[in-house]
Amino acid sequence: MAMNNTAEPVTLLGLGAMGTALARAWLAAGHPLTVWNRTTSRAESLAAEGATVAATAAEAIAAKGLTVICLLDDASVRDALSEADLQGKDLVNLTTSSPAQARALAEWAQARGARFLDGGIMAVPPMIGTPHGYVFYSGSRELFDTHRAALAVPADTVYVGEDPGFAALHDVALLSAMYGMFAGVAHAFALIRKEDIRPTDLAGRLVDWLTAMASSVHQTAAQLDSGDYTEGVASNLAMQVAGSQTLLRTAEEQGISPELITPYLDLMERRLAGGHGNEDTTGVIDLLAR
Amino acid sequence: MAMNNTAEPVTLLGLGAMGTALARAWLAAGHPLTVWNRTTSRAESLAAEGATVAATAAEAIAAKGLTVICLLDDASVRDALSEADLQGKDLVNLTTSSPAQARALAEWAQARGARFLDGGIMAVPPMIGTPHGYVFYSGSRELFDTHRAALAVPADTVYVGEDPGFAALHDVALLSAMYGMFAGVAHAFALIRKEDIRPTDLAGRLVDWLTAMASSVHQTAAQLDSGDYTEGVASNLAMQVAGSQTLLRTAEEQGISPELITPYLDLMERRLAGGHGNEDTTGVIDLLAR
Ligand SMILES: NC(=O)c1ccc[n+]([C@@H]2O[C@H](COP(=O)([O-])OP(=O)(O)OC[C@H]3O[C@@H](n4cnc5c(N)ncnc54)[C@H](OP(=O)(O)O)[C@@H]3O)[C@@H](O)[C@H]2O)c1
Ligand SMILES: NC(=O)c1ccc[n+]([C@@H]2O[C@H](COP(=O)([O-])OP(=O)(O)OC[C@H]3O[C@@H](n4cnc5c(N)ncnc54)[C@H](OP(=O)(O)O)[C@@H]3O)[C@@H](O)[C@H]2O)c1
Repeated sequence: MAMNNTAEPVTLLGLGAMGTALARAWLAAGHPLTVWNRTTSRAESLAAEGATVAATAAEAIAAKGLTVICLLDDASVRDALSEADLQGKDLVNLTTSSPAQARALAEWAQARGARFLDGGIMAVPPMIGTPHGYVFYSGSRELFDTHRAALAVPADTVYVGEDPGFAALHDVALLSAMYGMFAGVAHAFALIRKEDIRPTDLAGRLVDWLTAMASSVHQTAAQLDSGDYTEGVASNLAMQVAGSQTLLRTAEEQGISPELITPYLDLMERRLAGGHGNEDTTGVIDLLAR
Repeated sequence: MAMNNTAEPVTLLGLGAMGTALARAWLAAGHPLTVWNRTTSRAESLAAEGATVAATAAEAIAAKGLTVICLLDDASVRDALSEADLQGKDLVNLTTSSPAQARALAEWAQARGARFLDGGIMAVPPMIGTPHGYVFYSGSRELFDTHRAALAVPADTVYVGEDPGFAALHDVALLSAMYGMFAGVAHAFALIRKEDIRPTDLAGRLVDWLTAMASSVHQTAAQLDSGDYTEGVASNLAMQVAGSQTLLRTAEEQGISPELITPYLDLMERRLAGGHGNEDTTGVIDLLAR
């Protein structure tokens, strides 16, 4: 455990899988650490590693320094903070929440005299304290700048704006995109399931292909910025909708449900029917607005 | 135009966007080229560039050397080949088709005395003749080896097996995975549509994130190979299903339809309900089988 006399004190609420990883990272970097967890037994090993264990969340928050919260969900954060005195406190909430939940909590905390920063953790616990993964932050820039050194201990920091909802929005945007990719990958593996093709052989080709195709995201963004969805089109919507028949036919032949790919193909078809055959697929995004 | 006395003659059926790009690549590499297209006018500029224009598909196929077909779809290939003498011919079909269509065409061509190779083009026309993109091939290994030099002219070659359906299967698997990724990306951009976040700023973060997450495909493949979906799990299904509530809530808050992400989240939930909470998301693939 590296001792570091200038390291500022940190208070951490929540010692689940993620909280415990965060706690170890701060202890390892020599930050005086106060912890609280609803189920006290989870704090025992950390106490042995040098953490101070508080009896209540309010007591933990009363300790000097930055307060970081990493609980299950928004409701558990509301529970934990309900009795605490937040006047003059700096609160960083790493609990996963929606943008509106983060904005509402920021408002609530500020009304009680605290500065507030929300965070979205783009990592799993084993990545904490390693160079992998990072945390999106948004909300009080002053808080972020004041505590930058402590915040950078568990993972890289990416500040995305004063709006306390933006960290959650970035977090959810990236996770949603990832699940889309996972859905496509699941469909691909399902297609070869009964064939004499090893999943591990297909994997390398999928990774290379997805990595190459991911760069088209830049073109999509440029088209959204300009509003011209025909900019730099390599393969237009009309051709892609025609080609999608082969994808559906193949799913049918291979005996698998096409449910993971049909929603996107259907939206391409709707956009084509709207008279946009010479565009890229970007117009699908417009169709998602309610 | 580089002349090359050892370059073997190539016949190409189909001068659409892709066929024309292929033709130019072979001409540029000095291959004697015979072309045929249903609409004759599309052959004019290629004739000026040195191609021999055949009056019928049968006449084009009768010319010496390799025959490559790049037409709209399986039906147009059947049309074009119907009158031709295929005895002793080497046919390469680059027309997009399903695995079953490719297998049936291979059988049909072999019954008429031809060797057959199917191809799936992983490129758009502007990539042809550049180091980008490649073509999956499957079917006759002898044909592939005999004509390897000519086949490598328009794009890199990746031979994936004797089964003539495998090239199409790989092609469709990669395209399906790509559409999944595009669906996720569309959802992500839709989420920030009304916010003060520039799509071009989100793009870089999406690309980095998707590229990092794509490597999890190797773990999915290893789990499919071993049949143990708990192998190396970083974030289990139970946690992921819990987290998906925030994704759905955020879509709702941002006023967008969740239709592009719900099918995958629903399958995760079904798999969890099946008692697999400690697994990775790989089990979703099992649920796609009909
Ligand atoms: N693990 C990951 O991979 C990961 C990645 C990114 C983000 N996150 C986010 O990080 C946060 C924590 O995740 P985790 O993996 O540490 O979860 P976890 O292992 O399930 O731990 C949940 C924590 O919340 C506490 N808690 C639950 N309900 C509570 C309540 N009503 N009042 C007070 N405390 C309550 C639990 O206390 P008890 O011990 O008393 O139950 C425990 O400390 C979540 O928001 C999660 O989305 C996790
Ligand atoms: N373009 C791409 O980005 C791309 C990428 C990968 C794979 N591919 C595949 O490559 C193939 C050709 O694509 P393309 O972009 O060149 O398409 P295209 O520009 O639409 O050209 C279609 C070609 O098929 C011919 N054709 C259509 N119906 C026919 C029929 N019944 N009999 C004879 N010929 C017929 C057309 O002849 P006419 O000139 O007489 O109409 C034309 O030569 C397709 O299978 C496509 O899926 C294309």
